[in-house]
Amino acid sequence: MTKDGGKQQKQDNKAQQYGVTPQSADFNDWYNEVVKKADLADHSPVAGAMVVRPYGTALWENIQRGLDDRFKATGHQNLLFPTLIPMNFIMKEAEHVEGFAPELFTVSKIGTEVLSEPYVMRPTSETIIGHMWAGWLNSYRDLPFLHNQWGSVFRAELRTKPFLRTSEFFWQEGHTAHANEDEARAEVRQQLDEYHAFCRDVLALPVVRGEKTASERFAGAENTYSIEGMMRDGKALQSGTSHYLGQNFSRAFGVKFQTREQKEEFAFTTSWGLSSRIIGAIIMTHGDDFGLMMPPRIAPIQVVVIPVGRKDNFGEMVQEGEKLAAELRAQGLRVKVDGRDGVTNGFKYNDWELKGVPVRIELGPRDLESGVVVVKSRHSEEKETLPRAEAVAGMAARVDALHDWLYQRASSFMQERTAEVDDFEAFKQNIEEGRWVRAYHCADAACEKSIKEETKATARNVPFDDAEFFADRGEGQCVKCGQPSAYGKRVIFGRQY
Amino acid sequence: MTKDGGKQQKQDNKAQQYGVTPQSADFNDWYNEVVKKADLADHSPVAGAMVVRPYGTALWENIQRGLDDRFKATGHQNLLFPTLIPMNFIMKEAEHVEGFAPELFTVSKIGTEVLSEPYVMRPTSETIIGHMWAGWLNSYRDLPFLHNQWGSVFRAELRTKPFLRTSEFFWQEGHTAHANEDEARAEVRQQLDEYHAFCRDVLALPVVRGEKTASERFAGAENTYSIEGMMRDGKALQSGTSHYLGQNFSRAFGVKFQTREQKEEFAFTTSWGLSSRIIGAIIMTHGDDFGLMMPPRIAPIQVVVIPVGRKDNFGEMVQEGEKLAAELRAQGLRVKVDGRDGVTNGFKYNDWELKGVPVRIELGPRDLESGVVVVKSRHSEEKETLPRAEAVAGMAARVDALHDWLYQRASSFMQERTAEVDDFEAFKQNIEEGRWVRAYHCADAACEKSIKEETKATARNVPFDDAEFFADRGEGQCVKCGQPSAYGKRVIFGRQY
Repeated sequence: MTKDGGKQQKQDNKAQQYGVTPQSADFNDWYNEVVKKADLADHSPVAGAMVVRPYGTALWENIQRGLDDRFKATGHQNLLFPTLIPMNFIMKEAEHVEGFAPELFTVSKIGTEVLSEPYVMRPTSETIIGHMWAGWLNSYRDLPFLHNQWGSVFRAELRTKPFLRTSEFFWQEGHTAHANEDEARAEVRQQLDEYHAFCRDVLALPVVRGEKTASERFAGAENTYSIEGMMRDGKALQSGTSHYLGQNFSRAFGVKFQTREQKEEFAFTTSWGLSSRIIGAIIMTHGDDFGLMMPPRIAPIQVVVIPVGRKDNFGEMVQEGEKLAAELRAQGLRVKVDGRDGVTNGFKYNDWELKGVPVRIELGPRDLESGVVVVKSRHSEEKETLPRAEAVAGMAARVDALHDWLYQRASSFMQERTAEVDDFEAFKQNIEEGRWVRAYHCADAACEKSIKEETKATARNVPFDDAEFFADRGEGQCVKCGQPSAYGKRVIFGRQY
Repeated sequence: MTKDGGKQQKQDNKAQQYGVTPQSADFNDWYNEVVKKADLADHSPVAGAMVVRPYGTALWENIQRGLDDRFKATGHQNLLFPTLIPMNFIMKEAEHVEGFAPELFTVSKIGTEVLSEPYVMRPTSETIIGHMWAGWLNSYRDLPFLHNQWGSVFRAELRTKPFLRTSEFFWQEGHTAHANEDEARAEVRQQLDEYHAFCRDVLALPVVRGEKTASERFAGAENTYSIEGMMRDGKALQSGTSHYLGQNFSRAFGVKFQTREQKEEFAFTTSWGLSSRIIGAIIMTHGDDFGLMMPPRIAPIQVVVIPVGRKDNFGEMVQEGEKLAAELRAQGLRVKVDGRDGVTNGFKYNDWELKGVPVRIELGPRDLESGVVVVKSRHSEEKETLPRAEAVAGMAARVDALHDWLYQRASSFMQERTAEVDDFEAFKQNIEEGRWVRAYHCADAACEKSIKEETKATARNVPFDDAEFFADRGEGQCVKCGQPSAYGKRVIFGRQY
């Protein structure tokens, strides 16, 4: 965003008055302050865990509802597994235990009984689901299993950050089992595409679909695919993953079935997950120096009505505000009337801008007399005075207009801040300057590791041929070691959350 | 249920064919078999914890959605607290720790780090919520806090039973804080009434609202209120509770605020919860020898369509079944077409009766030609052949008719199996025969305890003056010790789940 000096000054004053550090001054402080001051989440007395406050929870519930409807439309069913998993289950899949052992929460006492076989709090549920599937599966007729679970999982984190990195986080984990590899692979791709469509069409988040490199795979997977978004500091955020697990877990847990041809076969399984860190993506993709910008289709509050009055007529204006809100709700909008007494209008304006509500309506006694309202969209500097009926009739479209604006802004930003690079010095410099880099790579794990060590950048993914962004095919030399490139295209590198 | 011999014989055969033990033969076996065979839940490899399967999860989700809408309509907001609670929090409220200490799950290791201050997995969240409230609350203007959380909690159970008694169970816990006692008490009552209305109007469960005796109170509460239902074996099931906590927790956690008069005051708090054990209540209140009867307003599947065909036209009949289902779905009904190949029609009929689907429609080739369908309601023995259009048009009403039938059956049953008793021998005999007993009691805790020890019956509650059932006031002598009665009315006693 380029702004002229006057406007920038005005913004700085406004931000200062409200007290949010501008993004450009310290992106990390900006993030933490927005999370706290917008009442999304708070620190908790449990090391590494957050409390999600009502505004953040309402956002997460809208995300849940939207995704859940999509999952069910493609035949998936929810179920509820225990939070605990026997420790020995985690041990059964060799790569899985190696990946998760350092992060496990161990339960070794129940009541006064010290357990000889401890439990762990689930870091993910492939193992216990595999165990149960083994009991439920007999014939190819029983397949596919198309299961999903909403819940929280536990992975120890030393340096925590609300929504992005917490020891307990909220997510959905899809788990499916199929009679053959093709069907399982189609599922893996379908669910990644669902995440992508949901991000694009509901959250206004542009994301790049692609495959993770071998060293970035999920512990126990044969292939891991991800969607990656760019935050406003140029870092990447892995926003959802989908894994083809082959027969690794079904072998470990005995998930087998009789085929149509009366043979015994292990099931082909998948898992896929999207977590509350997507809220971090929403904050850091769409936010500006004033705070959040809520994607309108998911915003807990889409329109806020601010009754503007004096002491003697404030109560009356609140009632008028409720009438206006009722008209807007009748159009299917989620509306809040800010009837707080004892805080200034300016405070309220800033508060709802910070909370990212797409549209604000001010309603004063003279407006009421003249039959007008004052309307301001979150992404615009302008206030408009409109006839009330016109404002009401056009409100759903006005709210939704923010969706395209956000998506366009974010996709332009992502493309502008991605450099195509063929030598390692330029690679380093671009990473240092907060860009993504598209570069050829040899696919050697040691080479990939050396890039990470020198630059703190990792391979984000290798975009699909039909990805919206960065999908063009080509060959070249590895940007680090000069060996011939793998993958048939450039890999995206970046620092990440 | 009185049945003539022939019908009873027919039922016994049918039950035997499907393999569910009749209720009268062994109620406990019947319950366990129905839970398992109706695919509601399964045992898990985690001691005391269950896996809720898709059919049971869909039922729970419908319950959640219905309750959540009610909570939000009265201004409550959801939030998400950590699953873990610092052990020392549990210690801060004296009665609370005494109540919960024997049941706690202790986490003493994270990764490789042994914790000097262990955590417990929440048995309930009053303590950590109190801690956070203390940070959020400043002035009377901030109140009330009307919060709710959906999640699972952990309380060690030795003898477990799916939905009724498991070490991990699913629930909602409401927590509210108010500026004065009256408002808090009104909240406690309002939420108990919501539970009652939801049970009556949605789950078709008659329940008795009343106050628990002092010895049956929640650990840390000043008053505990409950709704109690009667199962078909005559036992009681506490189906929801609402607690007035006074200032006990707010004092322990420093939840204080500045009053309108500029004084410092501790908040008056409440909590209220309803859990997945309500599914146990649904099973045991409505079930019969054939299995479940799902209350229609909450049934995951309200109508099942069974295409009846031969090998050569079965696929076609499934397609026709889907067309019929689409017509029914257009009326807002939740419909499933059972297109399973390789199982008999009889098996399907029994399977869906076991799963308690309110209405079944059979559709065969000749029905299709004649423009009719065969309809059978779950609670009736009769099949009806109806013109298709008429069946579709009347289906929503037919499904809903089961609601009143279930409610009437259950309330008559509860009233018939409750005895008014004035001497202890009759008390013992009625309890032994599986009835509730209404008796006067002195309110002395030791006397109440001695009743429990002799009869295994506990005081369920003291019905409100405006409860639907058993509300009449009166005085008398304690059924056990002969002292003058307390409470101004008879207390309900019964064995319980």
